[in-house]
Amino acid sequence: MLTKEEIRDWFVALQESICTQLEDADGKGKFISDPWQRSGGGGGITRVIGDGNIIEKGGVNFSAVWGKTPEPVLKSMNIDASDHPDFFATGVSIVLHPFNPMVPIIHMNVRYFEMTNGTWWFGGGIDLTPHYVNVEDARHFHSTLKSVCDQHHPSYYPEFKNWADDYFFLKHRKETRGIGGIFFDYLKDTSGFTKESRFEFIKSLGSAFAPLYVHFMKKNHGLSYTEQEKHWQYLRRGRYVEFNLVWDRGTKFGLDTDGRTESILMSLPPQAQWVYNYQPAAGSEEEKTLGMLKKGITWI
Amino acid sequence: MLTKEEIRDWFVALQESICTQLEDADGKGKFISDPWQRSGGGGGITRVIGDGNIIEKGGVNFSAVWGKTPEPVLKSMNIDASDHPDFFATGVSIVLHPFNPMVPIIHMNVRYFEMTNGTWWFGGGIDLTPHYVNVEDARHFHSTLKSVCDQHHPSYYPEFKNWADDYFFLKHRKETRGIGGIFFDYLKDTSGFTKESRFEFIKSLGSAFAPLYVHFMKKNHGLSYTEQEKHWQYLRRGRYVEFNLVWDRGTKFGLDTDGRTESILMSLPPQAQWVYNYQPAAGSEEEKTLGMLKKGITWI
Repeated sequence: MLTKEEIRDWFVALQESICTQLEDADGKGKFISDPWQRSGGGGGITRVIGDGNIIEKGGVNFSAVWGKTPEPVLKSMNIDASDHPDFFATGVSIVLHPFNPMVPIIHMNVRYFEMTNGTWWFGGGIDLTPHYVNVEDARHFHSTLKSVCDQHHPSYYPEFKNWADDYFFLKHRKETRGIGGIFFDYLKDTSGFTKESRFEFIKSLGSAFAPLYVHFMKKNHGLSYTEQEKHWQYLRRGRYVEFNLVWDRGTKFGLDTDGRTESILMSLPPQAQWVYNYQPAAGSEEEKTLGMLKKGITWI
Repeated sequence: MLTKEEIRDWFVALQESICTQLEDADGKGKFISDPWQRSGGGGGITRVIGDGNIIEKGGVNFSAVWGKTPEPVLKSMNIDASDHPDFFATGVSIVLHPFNPMVPIIHMNVRYFEMTNGTWWFGGGIDLTPHYVNVEDARHFHSTLKSVCDQHHPSYYPEFKNWADDYFFLKHRKETRGIGGIFFDYLKDTSGFTKESRFEFIKSLGSAFAPLYVHFMKKNHGLSYTEQEKHWQYLRRGRYVEFNLVWDRGTKFGLDTDGRTESILMSLPPQAQWVYNYQPAAGSEEEKTLGMLKKGITWI
């Protein structure tokens, strides 16, 4: 039977492997390692990179934390607090902000949660936020995710793709964060799945991350760009900040439950800008991108 | 008896008066006027300024909206939704971001709310966010607010000052947004107060705003600053973004209830930066400022 220690150890190795692959592809930036402990139990290793050739700011975080299950978790699951189960949670969380506006921002999170009452599940997601949507890149991204999903279950990609459209959405802008990806939560041993089979899916996704992003790093970082395009990147990073601080459940949960702020907010960009009521010019590339930040687009 | 129309009209005049005084003091920036309508009833006039001599980005917003009371408001007040009272809300909301890091960011909000079930109240607040805390400036700010409060009730300043310390607080940073100010809500005709006397207080505060901020504009905008100090300003603006998007109730409520996003988010700075785990040098001015971003400091 798959234990939480095996899952944790796999995540530790995943963090290491992703950092190595990203450093190799970047050629300059090096991850620093910042281990931390959680007073209630457990801790993590935050690894951050900055000022690379391609990556301007990013983080690849591992954590494994445990202790008394926070009230908000119990509430959200309708579990009576008087049962006071303990929890264990482990995962890897990544956000990368590139210098070049032609290289997309990427995010992935894979995680496992269990409680001493026997409940457990896997969750996670990955989504791509191009400053300029390139349809070919979007197709490559979604095709890769579909292949990963299809290895495990035909329902995964369509279901998790829709979930991502709904999740990575700025309700106050009526705008998706980017071109979506996949999102999933509460993956348990239901409908014929086993813990092992769920974990195999998580492993496939985790292992696919670095090659997938390295593809975009290599393909796009040599593309030229204008000051205007750089300005647009800053505005899109502003939207990224809005999503993470207003809507992202993980961020809100972390900040509400006294999580490690600097690790949670490593997802924020190196800088962002806001211009009142900015409207891209009619027919511009910026306007075309906005037109593709919609739910329900079939990229493949 | 004071009517909602009289209150609204006073806020309209306040917006105009504040914009005029700020333009005069800035000497270059001009407010543009952006009127908008709310589909459920009412609307507002968003006035934004940018690229002035002193003010880099800011807004002075007026709104008067009405219609079916949003569910979250009813819930927060324990009012049965089946009573379905209508609401009316009007107010002025201001945030100003100066170029010079020696000039503080300022915020003020004054508002009136009533429902067709007869409930009404005033709310609001003002707080100052210096990038570098200057104790003399902080004393001037709080003394001015205390004088305004003391004209109306001796309990106002001490009570509302503490409320501001609690409200303008980044729980995830254990840091106040700035040097606080005053915050108040649900000011009704209780404990000997009348609607008229509450409104007189609101008027005093509203009228005090422009001269108070113009004082800091004139006093500090000529001060020289380094690139390092400009960088610190960007980091502090990052904190301002965090407060507004994570903790500010007005912002959250507006974004949740389909408010006018661009008017709500005019409070965001022109640009902001985030550096992983930034620690100011020991003994630096930046460190001194951080040391004063605490609740419970008696500035006067």
